[in-house]
Amino acid sequence: MGCPRADHRTTVEDVTTSLASTALRTDQYELTMLAAALHDGSAHRRCTFEVFARKLPDGRRYGIVAGTERVLDAVRAFRFTDDDLASVSRFLDASTVEWLRDYRFSGTITGFPEGELYFPGSPILSVTGTFAECVLLETITLSILNHDSAIASAAARMVTAADGRPPIEMGSRRTHEEAAVAAARAAYIAGFTATSNLEAARRHGVPSAGTSAHAFTMVHTTADGPDEAAAFRAQVATLGTGTTLLVDTYDITEGVRTAIDIAGTGLAAVRIDSGDLGPLARQVREQLDSLGATSTKIVVSGDLDEHAIAALRADPVDSYGVGTSLVTGSGAPTAGMVYKLVEVDGVPVAKRSSNKETIGGAKSALRIARPTGTLVEEVIHPATLAPPPLPHARTVTRVFLEGGERAAARVTLEEARENTRKGLRSLPWEGLALSRGEPAIPTRFLSEEDHR
Amino acid sequence: MGCPRADHRTTVEDVTTSLASTALRTDQYELTMLAAALHDGSAHRRCTFEVFARKLPDGRRYGIVAGTERVLDAVRAFRFTDDDLASVSRFLDASTVEWLRDYRFSGTITGFPEGELYFPGSPILSVTGTFAECVLLETITLSILNHDSAIASAAARMVTAADGRPPIEMGSRRTHEEAAVAAARAAYIAGFTATSNLEAARRHGVPSAGTSAHAFTMVHTTADGPDEAAAFRAQVATLGTGTTLLVDTYDITEGVRTAIDIAGTGLAAVRIDSGDLGPLARQVREQLDSLGATSTKIVVSGDLDEHAIAALRADPVDSYGVGTSLVTGSGAPTAGMVYKLVEVDGVPVAKRSSNKETIGGAKSALRIARPTGTLVEEVIHPATLAPPPLPHARTVTRVFLEGGERAAARVTLEEARENTRKGLRSLPWEGLALSRGEPAIPTRFLSEEDHR
Repeated sequence: MGCPRADHRTTVEDVTTSLASTALRTDQYELTMLAAALHDGSAHRRCTFEVFARKLPDGRRYGIVAGTERVLDAVRAFRFTDDDLASVSRFLDASTVEWLRDYRFSGTITGFPEGELYFPGSPILSVTGTFAECVLLETITLSILNHDSAIASAAARMVTAADGRPPIEMGSRRTHEEAAVAAARAAYIAGFTATSNLEAARRHGVPSAGTSAHAFTMVHTTADGPDEAAAFRAQVATLGTGTTLLVDTYDITEGVRTAIDIAGTGLAAVRIDSGDLGPLARQVREQLDSLGATSTKIVVSGDLDEHAIAALRADPVDSYGVGTSLVTGSGAPTAGMVYKLVEVDGVPVAKRSSNKETIGGAKSALRIARPTGTLVEEVIHPATLAPPPLPHARTVTRVFLEGGERAAARVTLEEARENTRKGLRSLPWEGLALSRGEPAIPTRFLSEEDHR
Repeated sequence: MGCPRADHRTTVEDVTTSLASTALRTDQYELTMLAAALHDGSAHRRCTFEVFARKLPDGRRYGIVAGTERVLDAVRAFRFTDDDLASVSRFLDASTVEWLRDYRFSGTITGFPEGELYFPGSPILSVTGTFAECVLLETITLSILNHDSAIASAAARMVTAADGRPPIEMGSRRTHEEAAVAAARAAYIAGFTATSNLEAARRHGVPSAGTSAHAFTMVHTTADGPDEAAAFRAQVATLGTGTTLLVDTYDITEGVRTAIDIAGTGLAAVRIDSGDLGPLARQVREQLDSLGATSTKIVVSGDLDEHAIAALRADPVDSYGVGTSLVTGSGAPTAGMVYKLVEVDGVPVAKRSSNKETIGGAKSALRIARPTGTLVEEVIHPATLAPPPLPHARTVTRVFLEGGERAAARVTLEEARENTRKGLRSLPWEGLALSRGEPAIPTRFLSEEDHR
């Protein structure tokens, strides 16, 4: 009877690693605009759309770009399946539906590599092609960049606050189950050392970590009451003394004593997840040292954000577990980036709605530094013109796609991580302050006249 | 020779509609706890874990449960594929990995149906089974409930503020691309009338809406300058006069005049997306009326939250488009729910960490009202005992899964929507206030003694 039909089938892995079809992660108006633009031919005009942030959220001094590689994957996967087409034919005419059947982005995408700093007005991504092929990519592009950059931007501040002590991402439970995977990836770009999220470990290769929760200690309760020692014994027997024992389920002092009793002074770490973490860390450090467990580390978690992390700098804390505040962008859960039409058939365009001005024309960015490497300003110039000859200037903008195909190798997570590390090192010192302030460096826009 | 292997393959549709394998949307510590619990046999103890919120976020007076049906789907799909097992064998012993190969939740899940109100301490979901089978579900359960309930809780306040005028969800671009789909669903439960998100329309049947953006007007720019009329002509020719024309790309007064010139007085609506929306709506209403377009509606969008929506109550606004504030939970992007072990082999358990007390024992909830239907309090009692005989009491808790199988029909989105509608109607009037305050009704916990 022949083989089962395997056409149009995709494995789970394909989907979870690269989103097999991203075409309906789209707002309806993109398709109705397409229909109207096909009607009068404007669909075929050559356009550039630009992703930028009008301002940084919440008094921040810099942002970290994350999500670019995910956007490029999503653009590649932006194809309409039969099921997608059936769904949109509810509100679209037949010729537009047929046009979508063959959709494949064939234009150019340039922009900032993942891990780079960005500032208000930075041309983070530029998408050039026909109006029709570019307009459809607005929602998926912004969803990814706004989410991932919000997390990376918050994470970088926490990494700075942690001052060399490894921060671990543990926020999966506080955000949408797929956002959790992207958040773990973005936090790693920004300098977090590990995640609790197993899918991020599999899909993106982020190092994963985790040992036990209060429930594990509590399940060892019997009719005679709690038995913390039984829990610790089982954990050490299974995971070895290289594990982290959670010592605050009942009484912390007793928990620490029991932990060292059972695991010995070679125990890798204890974790404190509640209470006033600074005083508790000092007390636990003293107790561990007095028990001879001088190399046993202290991990703290529980409602930490960048400010709480910084406040623990003087305390004997070896690692931070960060959850809610990280995956919610620490007060700025979205980066506020927009996707705006800036050029049509070579002519710069801009809307004039109040407070939402756009600077027309496709753009590239340079970053200018002192001879010491400290940043001075960002200079944004028309993309069609050669970069102006400025000293100590570095071109930030790269070409990612040409003719719809990769024009350069994928930026790896490790490269993105290195971009952030270098970027943070290049900020003027006040740019690293956690307090609310102005962007760390000014942005200067050059016009065509400035080039002459 | 023979057929290509199709085992363990899943179609894209399976994945996108029901998450074919959810097993790695998990924190690593759940699997290390499992390994240790299998080692000493505590894995097989009968446990109940409970999802509840210690408090409502941000001075809120009630919360709306959303995500329950998504959790039940995710539990059903919580199976470890070969690829999942290969990934976790990095850090797990072989016998634990083999145990996972056969994993399938076979316990009981009870809780609050989607769309119900909740308050601090409400037993939103109770998961009963062996420690091993329940502990693995912590992260996926919390990810879904914390995200979806945060959105629904914010959305319900906006629906109240809109006071009968239809609010439309347009926030996809401001949140993770998959969170966007869940956010559209949650907003619909809470009373939003439509979404811009096409995947939410396909996957969940949420009504979708959308017509055009500024880019569509701007792509009609020529060497002679902007041509708003050309854009409106193309849109009306393609989508008919039942469309919404966006009138604020350049000058609003001119935009309105051009819109009616081209579409006639039968134009369905105009949209204003920037500026001071109240005065602009009044001005546009007056102009539309003077042009004879008395039935043309006014849609407003742009940085709206529940407070901005309420502030427009006296203005001639017919519909609200809400984006950023909705998908970020309007200041509370996560619901702060936790998943805590409350019972082991029939014995209530609780941890004693400071400020994080848990009330032990599996629980059920009743809601008590006045004869008029207005809520008075929530009463939470031990699940093993019959509900206390209180007048005007309604049992909120339902049984969803028994023996791992559906014990009742799925709560449809329309039923969930009706739950919210009824719930909001039953709140005391101060419970609907947008200002910061206390929970709308108190919660009373009954012990076994209270039953005697």
